[in-house]
Amino acid sequence: MLTAGVDIGGTKLLAVAATEKGEIVAQRRQPTAAGPDAILSAVATVVADLVADEPSIAALGVGLPGLVDLEGFVHFAPNLPGFVGVAARERLAATCPVPVVVDNDANVAALGEVLHGAGRGRREVLVVTLGTGIGGGLVIGGEVHRGGYGFAAEIGHFTVDPDGPPCACGARGHWEAIASGSALGRRAREWAARGEAPNVLARAGGNVEAVTGHEVGQAAAAREPDALAILTEHARAVAVGLGGLINILDPELIVISGGLIDLGDSLLGPLRAVLPEYVEAADRRPMPPVVPAALGEHAGAVGAAALARTLLPAR
Amino acid sequence: MLTAGVDIGGTKLLAVAATEKGEIVAQRRQPTAAGPDAILSAVATVVADLVADEPSIAALGVGLPGLVDLEGFVHFAPNLPGFVGVAARERLAATCPVPVVVDNDANVAALGEVLHGAGRGRREVLVVTLGTGIGGGLVIGGEVHRGGYGFAAEIGHFTVDPDGPPCACGARGHWEAIASGSALGRRAREWAARGEAPNVLARAGGNVEAVTGHEVGQAAAAREPDALAILTEHARAVAVGLGGLINILDPELIVISGGLIDLGDSLLGPLRAVLPEYVEAADRRPMPPVVPAALGEHAGAVGAAALARTLLPAR
Repeated sequence: MLTAGVDIGGTKLLAVAATEKGEIVAQRRQPTAAGPDAILSAVATVVADLVADEPSIAALGVGLPGLVDLEGFVHFAPNLPGFVGVAARERLAATCPVPVVVDNDANVAALGEVLHGAGRGRREVLVVTLGTGIGGGLVIGGEVHRGGYGFAAEIGHFTVDPDGPPCACGARGHWEAIASGSALGRRAREWAARGEAPNVLARAGGNVEAVTGHEVGQAAAAREPDALAILTEHARAVAVGLGGLINILDPELIVISGGLIDLGDSLLGPLRAVLPEYVEAADRRPMPPVVPAALGEHAGAVGAAALARTLLPAR
Repeated sequence: MLTAGVDIGGTKLLAVAATEKGEIVAQRRQPTAAGPDAILSAVATVVADLVADEPSIAALGVGLPGLVDLEGFVHFAPNLPGFVGVAARERLAATCPVPVVVDNDANVAALGEVLHGAGRGRREVLVVTLGTGIGGGLVIGGEVHRGGYGFAAEIGHFTVDPDGPPCACGARGHWEAIASGSALGRRAREWAARGEAPNVLARAGGNVEAVTGHEVGQAAAAREPDALAILTEHARAVAVGLGGLINILDPELIVISGGLIDLGDSLLGPLRAVLPEYVEAADRRPMPPVVPAALGEHAGAVGAAALARTLLPAR
């Protein structure tokens, strides 16, 4: 029996039909439509299309970037304009031929990595998405921890420096604001403006304002020392928050996903080196391994399909 | 059928026999012995004594202040000298007539509050102990979250200010270092040294170094404005970390325990007022109520007795 998973991103919609082992047997990809009506209609259409090809699809899981409560009601989704106060699950259930569950996109991506990716076989996993912002998912006892109201795992949003830079959420000095991919770009521009990142700056045509994490990654791949030094500093910013999360949650494994995993060991190496400094009694306890995600852009859709299995009676 | 619960504190040992409703039918209290051998021997003796009075005791739960892994092995316990690398559960099982489980004291206290105290009926609860340090417990799905290795819920130990004061754990600027009872004392001394806490200072005999949270509490009870202002500032320090934990965990209820709850609404009032400033999208989601603990000093022993029920086949 198959399930369908749909990952609604800010720019693209990815839909899959997957087996219980997470194998993708069919997929569809299209640009994300504009507005909740068009998006929900597109989901219903693409799922009907998948079901036509794969009639054994028995349930649908959907992930989207927003505050989704336990009923699949979307309270707020800053990256999906208009998606405020939308009963997404209820509306999809009315138009789809199979039962539907809706969750936050980072939650379903975390579930995908734990069940079918880098976290296979683990039950206590922290998935950290280092991208434009910092998102993630907490897998506890093998299931995604959604919290009392469905809003858990906003793991980028805790204060690590009251004098730190502003966060996209409006607060100041959140972990996201110092350790995300956007923060890496800002950090690199600061180094470049101080004249300390000549190789990185050269890759941006000598224009400080044009420097982003992308140029840091290119220079790091070429083992250029300024880029590696920037990443060592950035790794410490990642470790500050990640160490706190280890103290709070004690995961057995940490999976890093998001755009920054393209940096590979240029980032993960220094991160692993400094992380114990931020973990209480690190020399008296097992430290969780820190590994890159395995499913890439399919994590969300595959995880949404896995979440849909919780709707099936046979489970 | 009864279970026994023992809370081994740094200074006293409290043992109870409790019903499944958390009613205490017998209790024993004694000073904590010195060293692991004497402590474990005292636990065995007190439990044998309880069992002699209450033969229906069918299991034993023990809480102690330290890093206790999932096997009941104590890796580190700074407040119980000598308790390093001690197979506490195994050794107690060899001398006690009933099955034994051992956990961290804050974890069992959290379980006690959730099952039989301020958190009754809730399944997603964050218990925060504001005392000399900050401890706590995470109750997820109605059970204490122990993490991958047993060390979860060291919730006082994440960086909230890299330039903040040193933490008892050796790090700098942890939440505990700015928001614990000890931190309240330091804050009050700073106010007193600046001449901004005349009433609090008077209660310490005019000696700045003698000011502690105790004098702040006395002055606050008398509604003296300097004490109330210190508590308003301290409430913000509590809110910085607590708001982050809400973003990460999304509890449906927050229970505050520890010595600082004696401050009552002088602290909880301003805390409730500023907490939404530290919670993402606070105006678009339910905020968890913040309530004081209900079981007082019995939370740990009652919770340990409740944990012991997980050992019973009938469960």
